[in-house]
Amino acid sequence: MDLIKENDIVLIKLMNGEDFIIKAVKDGFLSVPYGTVFFDDLIGKEYGSKIYFRGKNKAGYVLKNSIIDYIFNIRRRTQIVYPKDIGYAMLYLDLKPGDTVVECGTGSGATTAVLSRIVGKEGRVISYDLDIENSKIAEENLKFLQNYNNVSFKTGNIQIGLEERDVEAFFLDVPEPENSVEKAINTLKHSGKICIVAPTFNQVQSVLEEVDKLKNTVDVQVWETMIRNYKINPERLRPEDKMVGHTTFMIFGTKVVRR
Amino acid sequence: MDLIKENDIVLIKLMNGEDFIIKAVKDGFLSVPYGTVFFDDLIGKEYGSKIYFRGKNKAGYVLKNSIIDYIFNIRRRTQIVYPKDIGYAMLYLDLKPGDTVVECGTGSGATTAVLSRIVGKEGRVISYDLDIENSKIAEENLKFLQNYNNVSFKTGNIQIGLEERDVEAFFLDVPEPENSVEKAINTLKHSGKICIVAPTFNQVQSVLEEVDKLKNTVDVQVWETMIRNYKINPERLRPEDKMVGHTTFMIFGTKVVRR
Amino acid sequence: MDLIKENDIVLIKLMNGEDFIIKAVKDGFLSVPYGTVFFDDLIGKEYGSKIYFRGKNKAGYVLKNSIIDYIFNIRRRTQIVYPKDIGYAMLYLDLKPGDTVVECGTGSGATTAVLSRIVGKEGRVISYDLDIENSKIAEENLKFLQNYNNVSFKTGNIQIGLEERDVEAFFLDVPEPENSVEKAINTLKHSGKICIVAPTFNQVQSVLEEVDKLKNTVDVQVWETMIRNYKINPERLRPEDKMVGHTTFMIFGTKVVRR
Amino acid sequence: MDLIKENDIVLIKLMNGEDFIIKAVKDGFLSVPYGTVFFDDLIGKEYGSKIYFRGKNKAGYVLKNSIIDYIFNIRRRTQIVYPKDIGYAMLYLDLKPGDTVVECGTGSGATTAVLSRIVGKEGRVISYDLDIENSKIAEENLKFLQNYNNVSFKTGNIQIGLEERDVEAFFLDVPEPENSVEKAINTLKHSGKICIVAPTFNQVQSVLEEVDKLKNTVDVQVWETMIRNYKINPERLRPEDKMVGHTTFMIFGTKVVRR
Repeated sequence: MDLIKENDIVLIKLMNGEDFIIKAVKDGFLSVPYGTVFFDDLIGKEYGSKIYFRGKNKAGYVLKNSIIDYIFNIRRRTQIVYPKDIGYAMLYLDLKPGDTVVECGTGSGATTAVLSRIVGKEGRVISYDLDIENSKIAEENLKFLQNYNNVSFKTGNIQIGLEERDVEAFFLDVPEPENSVEKAINTLKHSGKICIVAPTFNQVQSVLEEVDKLKNTVDVQVWETMIRNYKINPERLRPEDKMVGHTTFMIFGTKVVRR
Repeated sequence: MDLIKENDIVLIKLMNGEDFIIKAVKDGFLSVPYGTVFFDDLIGKEYGSKIYFRGKNKAGYVLKNSIIDYIFNIRRRTQIVYPKDIGYAMLYLDLKPGDTVVECGTGSGATTAVLSRIVGKEGRVISYDLDIENSKIAEENLKFLQNYNNVSFKTGNIQIGLEERDVEAFFLDVPEPENSVEKAINTLKHSGKICIVAPTFNQVQSVLEEVDKLKNTVDVQVWETMIRNYKINPERLRPEDKMVGHTTFMIFGTKVVRR
Repeated sequence: MDLIKENDIVLIKLMNGEDFIIKAVKDGFLSVPYGTVFFDDLIGKEYGSKIYFRGKNKAGYVLKNSIIDYIFNIRRRTQIVYPKDIGYAMLYLDLKPGDTVVECGTGSGATTAVLSRIVGKEGRVISYDLDIENSKIAEENLKFLQNYNNVSFKTGNIQIGLEERDVEAFFLDVPEPENSVEKAINTLKHSGKICIVAPTFNQVQSVLEEVDKLKNTVDVQVWETMIRNYKINPERLRPEDKMVGHTTFMIFGTKVVRR
Repeated sequence: MDLIKENDIVLIKLMNGEDFIIKAVKDGFLSVPYGTVFFDDLIGKEYGSKIYFRGKNKAGYVLKNSIIDYIFNIRRRTQIVYPKDIGYAMLYLDLKPGDTVVECGTGSGATTAVLSRIVGKEGRVISYDLDIENSKIAEENLKFLQNYNNVSFKTGNIQIGLEERDVEAFFLDVPEPENSVEKAINTLKHSGKICIVAPTFNQVQSVLEEVDKLKNTVDVQVWETMIRNYKINPERLRPEDKMVGHTTFMIFGTKVVRR
């Protein structure tokens, strides 16, 4: 049984499906058109409890802030990588506790959070961005999840080269990824893995040509994942009318001694 | 730089794309129609190196055995959950190092391995199956990956009820899942999460009806993921002609105090 | 070379992509926030010509009103069947000039128009709806396309039975289609074909159960079509971010002498 | 009620789902490992009837040969366009009885048959191929469907230019379509429509660049259709495990007076 403590990061899910991530500070409150939730009423309550608009009817539930809530609710200046793509990439990158992984670019810190969590306390995430403003926002965002003290934010231009060497995995999500592939692979140990985010076909083409030229990867694969949400009425079961049509293509490879 | 040690579990990737997971035992060998790889030649080599058919031409590469290789190459008596589905489920279940997760049923141990890796040394996986034979195969399979000493295999009928309580997450992958949903949710702490594997629409319907009756979950969602592989010739870039059309629907929910 | 004649039904496509179907009546005009197109300026012009806001800059193009424009622009009270589904169904129903086809229900007349066009002057379309208001709207809508004088609109309840017999094809698009399948198949000649529109899985199940009971169809198939639109910038080629996630499932069968 | 006449083209659908298109010639027969169907037994029977292996048990059904059966069963030397794509293209090309349409290349005559049927007796299909062998096979194939006497097969190189002018629609399905787009559009009347088959992204890019340069089309669209087949057991309703992952991208445009 987990109780809400003062200053916990908490997800408030209202009856109408709206989500709010809040910090349960003393004297804090969340005010929406239909009522107000006072955080002092939350502190000491069990996660998963019903909550009420003070002096009024049921507001919703108080839940733990999950990684999915985090990804979709963080402050962002950039396009995020979607859970369907991150989840698949984490498996393909073969990430495990204790690994060292380099990410470039940081963006809003959505992927950073997943990487941090998977490599855990004994692992390390080095996350680069050209724009220090992004690093700052990501660092702020990360405070909304459990901190593993394993992320280093760095500002730098991957096209010049990065200092890291012998890392287990690289997650490359930058514009014109073809110009950064070589430097990214340089940081990997042999048998290490890279995932490259490429939203357009032109990028996929250019990356494949570059990878082909480098001759130091095998098992090169290009994937696209799609996801469809269903209406949950069991008497009228059917997919939702609208879906996300495209997020990105993902390119994977394993570094080997130069072919 | 990681060197292959005696008794390492190693992935041999031949030039023609064929994969073999082997244990690098002294005096061992892998013989295929076009030549033989002797394991004594591998021991002491760097992961990611080229390997040769003794006295002959290049055989391929020696790589670390990744979780994806594991999932697709393990001995199995049952249908496995696909990486596209497991990766997404791990995020939705909000799994992190130190968590306790219950899986039912064990099957071939594909999902078990991913769960074990994500919750890490300080976490715990309890994996149930009705059939002790499955548990044994899964236990054998898991030896092909790094061991986190965090998995307990149990034989038991979830429809009778499980002894675990207050766990963070439940992965339910059994026939007629609608008959096991209540007992599965019983093991969860409030704000804990469940993922239910349901390959047919009839199962989705029955599970949704059961979930509706139980009145102790919110944020119920039904998803289907699809994945498409692309040919990697940059001059003729296009999806593969064939794809997997269906694996399963996945149902997610978060346990709350009874509504 | 086709010239616009007075009273032609014409598609005006503005530079910003907006479409308007108009009747080129004398003294008519189309006024939009950025200018006015006078129809007297259109009459006598070639289809495919540029058109101008009078005394101003280029407005767009004047085009023939195509069946796709018709489908997406007609007045409707009901959900239409999408071109991706109609096109496929026309082939599966094996429709050709001279055929007789029954449609139920008429809806807004989107499918009616396609049926009418395919069976041509020597064919016949009988289109039923429970609601005479729908028949009237569909009849009005059809005037926006070339008239083949081959459609009879009827009001009637298919669950009571229809008078038609020995027709080549049946297009069934009603709520609770399972209750109408028998009567629909009754109108078909042996070796005739039926297409049933079923947006939910529950409907697909019920229809399949009913078809199974009737024992007078073979080659029963259930299909779903999906369609993805691409951004047309050749330097940033990629699918659109959003797509239609679901329209309907389609069930096909061929009538035979009772099994 | 339609009876089988001598020399009819007939579809025999065996109980095991196998299809055979035969010509019901006197003294003819179809022999399969499990029995023989004699065509003299078919002549005079109603379409949709059960048929028997002579002196034995039920063989299956005798059906009309539909356009879908035709497409999937014709003799072919080339890749066919799939029904899901043809059906959609026919609507986008806005084809109707009486239209003139040019096809290039003929291939095996799958699309030719659909075009022929839609434009009907008063329409015209001109089908070009570089290879006279293809034209001959297509002409033979077309005999398996009702003949509308409206197809002219021609041998010629579209890159040199075609003699047709002022046609309603063009269906372009050749290797390196970007080199044929201009000549194809030249044959169209203003407001006429073109559909270009482009299986790879490189082709889509090149075609879009070419179309952009020509400045004589509007409403350029790129589409991809996907199709999923479902298992028809209503108690275990689910998509088939395998599906076609890719056939082609389709590019559409409407010719206008040069922009």
